[in-house]
Amino acid sequence: MRAVDIIIKKRDKQQLTAEEIEFFVRGFTNGDIPDYQASAFAMAIMLNGMSPVETADLTLAMARSGQVLDLSKEVDIVVDKHSSGGVGDKTSISVMPMVAACGLPVGKMSGRGLGFSGGTLDKLESIPGYRVDLSTDEFKKQLREKGIVLTGQSMDLAPADGKMYALRDVTGTVPSMPLIASSIMCKKIAGGANAIVLDVKTGLGAFMQTLPEARELASLMVDIGRRAGRNTVALLSDMNQPLGAAVGNALEVIEAIDMLRGGGPADYREHCLHVAAHVLVVGQRAKDLNEGRAMAENSIADGSALEKFRALVAAQGGDASYVDDNSRFERAKYVEVAHAPRNGFISQVHARSVGEASVVLGAGRAKKGDPVDHAVGFIIHKKVGDEVREGEPLFEVHANDRAKLAAARKAALSAHLFSDEFVPPLPLFYE
Amino acid sequence: MRAVDIIIKKRDKQQLTAEEIEFFVRGFTNGDIPDYQASAFAMAIMLNGMSPVETADLTLAMARSGQVLDLSKEVDIVVDKHSSGGVGDKTSISVMPMVAACGLPVGKMSGRGLGFSGGTLDKLESIPGYRVDLSTDEFKKQLREKGIVLTGQSMDLAPADGKMYALRDVTGTVPSMPLIASSIMCKKIAGGANAIVLDVKTGLGAFMQTLPEARELASLMVDIGRRAGRNTVALLSDMNQPLGAAVGNALEVIEAIDMLRGGGPADYREHCLHVAAHVLVVGQRAKDLNEGRAMAENSIADGSALEKFRALVAAQGGDASYVDDNSRFERAKYVEVAHAPRNGFISQVHARSVGEASVVLGAGRAKKGDPVDHAVGFIIHKKVGDEVREGEPLFEVHANDRAKLAAARKAALSAHLFSDEFVPPLPLFYE
Repeated sequence: MRAVDIIIKKRDKQQLTAEEIEFFVRGFTNGDIPDYQASAFAMAIMLNGMSPVETADLTLAMARSGQVLDLSKEVDIVVDKHSSGGVGDKTSISVMPMVAACGLPVGKMSGRGLGFSGGTLDKLESIPGYRVDLSTDEFKKQLREKGIVLTGQSMDLAPADGKMYALRDVTGTVPSMPLIASSIMCKKIAGGANAIVLDVKTGLGAFMQTLPEARELASLMVDIGRRAGRNTVALLSDMNQPLGAAVGNALEVIEAIDMLRGGGPADYREHCLHVAAHVLVVGQRAKDLNEGRAMAENSIADGSALEKFRALVAAQGGDASYVDDNSRFERAKYVEVAHAPRNGFISQVHARSVGEASVVLGAGRAKKGDPVDHAVGFIIHKKVGDEVREGEPLFEVHANDRAKLAAARKAALSAHLFSDEFVPPLPLFYE
Repeated sequence: MRAVDIIIKKRDKQQLTAEEIEFFVRGFTNGDIPDYQASAFAMAIMLNGMSPVETADLTLAMARSGQVLDLSKEVDIVVDKHSSGGVGDKTSISVMPMVAACGLPVGKMSGRGLGFSGGTLDKLESIPGYRVDLSTDEFKKQLREKGIVLTGQSMDLAPADGKMYALRDVTGTVPSMPLIASSIMCKKIAGGANAIVLDVKTGLGAFMQTLPEARELASLMVDIGRRAGRNTVALLSDMNQPLGAAVGNALEVIEAIDMLRGGGPADYREHCLHVAAHVLVVGQRAKDLNEGRAMAENSIADGSALEKFRALVAAQGGDASYVDDNSRFERAKYVEVAHAPRNGFISQVHARSVGEASVVLGAGRAKKGDPVDHAVGFIIHKKVGDEVREGEPLFEVHANDRAKLAAARKAALSAHLFSDEFVPPLPLFYE
């Protein structure tokens, strides 16, 4: 078998076999197949596509390119929840403790933020001491003993994916459905989850800007999960405007904790309950969504979800006192309120623009490896469909730098559009 | 400007500017743009194509990636003739001296054979001492003094092309019309020719197997030549069966000299006169094809073409006595005649199969850098349309090894097909 023949087959729109895909991925991982062949292959996939079978084969080959966690000795089932990324999306921080409190083991590896999109690890690190670099043994032990882990991908999971992603980033081959789907799913599969809930975002602040694209990605990933023997479900949720009110690392953790305590913005609360219900059904702890939702609500009401989060923070070395006293979180030096410039109905709070403005503040990173400022960000007071009066508070800017504050405030203000007519609120979920 | 944005533009089927193409080619040549970006770019071009303007810009950028010869101080006009490659194609060896004898300066850089297709340099090296590694100064001096040069590409002409071709070869991006056309034309342009005749072969023994493909390549190259300010014409000629009778290095040179002496197979003779007439018109020495053909015929009749070839060989260090005494050429140890196995009309002499059989004999090379045996090859006695009787001589095998002889003879015999019905001869030219 020769790499060039596999490239040529894909170039000519022929179907690749599992053996050919395995050969290519293994060769690429161990360095036998050079980058210049892999990038030509990626471009051929980008332009000619891959069938669902090929995509599943690619996913499995990438999952097997490194260690594949077997957690069956630790727990009977492990659930993972993945969000395709967005602005103000702190869902995992609330939902994972909720379902863990319902007796469903959670073993989740998250990523960092990049560009306008935040990352769960950056958010959790707002709590001093919280470790995101657990070893495999620590991961297993904590899963067994606490039933919840929220860490980074410190083990060598799916190394082919990391190598491939770096190459795609510089060769114009990022926005390929089969490559995106396999990149996400190979890590979930290698991470040992046997029940997976995918929260695919769509809209102005999502990687998939249109509903058809998001639907295509979602069904492709569900198909991969099914072929890999993982119980997988996907939700399509809105990311035209930020989710909830808080955008920024510590601000989002505070909001996620509020929610676990029974508070938080209504849209975020509803989003979390809906996701949690799905997770509980996929994880075989609830027989249907109604039961799942009731269980999730109960975990808030009886304090067990908050208790689970406290246990998680403590287990991973974080200062658990932050969970019960949000005044302990580092705060920004300057907090300024922006007011509505006119009367009307909010017709848009452009999620991506708000996300980019938060990068200006230092909450996100322009490129990999940049540090983030945990304290800064926004609190969005008004959402699409809300009626506002001129001069009413629209949002807060939390900043550590005056010039950045001014720039971010201006950008966030431009992200808001107003209408004289009534505007219906955005749905939380599409499907 | 960033390489990845240029790749993305081509991936998205947008038109690249001359500046973007120049940036990419220059960066690739000097190593700023790595191979993995160039191969992704090549695959995007392969699958999405390039407009004629983009293709011409690519050609000029590659031509300018190294030295571009300016021969205007040496001669008023320089002609080059390029064949897209085939079996038994020794046309340059006859035509170049003919037109040079008519007062048209010839400065041609040829290549070596690869696979089933022979190369002019290998053929000329059948004459001991013949140098194909002239320096730029030697090239210019000989052009000025002798009016004819037939050498290899020893200078650093179009280095981007050599680098790109090596990459295309291993990334499945060889058969792309814009990449093929620009690869051929950039070397012609860098070589200083201002009049170019392209002999594009089509058929079983050509890289372009179908007439529409050959026509597309031809018109693309003519368009590039026009945009680059070079007087360019393309002919489409047959390569279903070998051209002439001889296939193999020394055998072909002997046939080319025979032709210059007024002999040689009728098809080869006619092919050469037709090509020479076009070259003389493009090179502004003849006002039309009729005059060009008469001049070419005259150069044979008055011995001036042969004299020009003698001068060429001597100028490049070759033993000119070979030109006048073909018994001096190295001969193969074994010469065996294959006879017609049946009565009938020849319906096919598969050019590629004959070419591959000659590689078996050692006349060609399976991979770059392999040595060639100048003495071995075939003499094809019967061509498509000829009637044969069982037992009549069909072809000769010239070999230096008994086992190779048997294998090559068998393969060449299979290349011949017979019909009970009359078969019309193949045309020499299509357009």
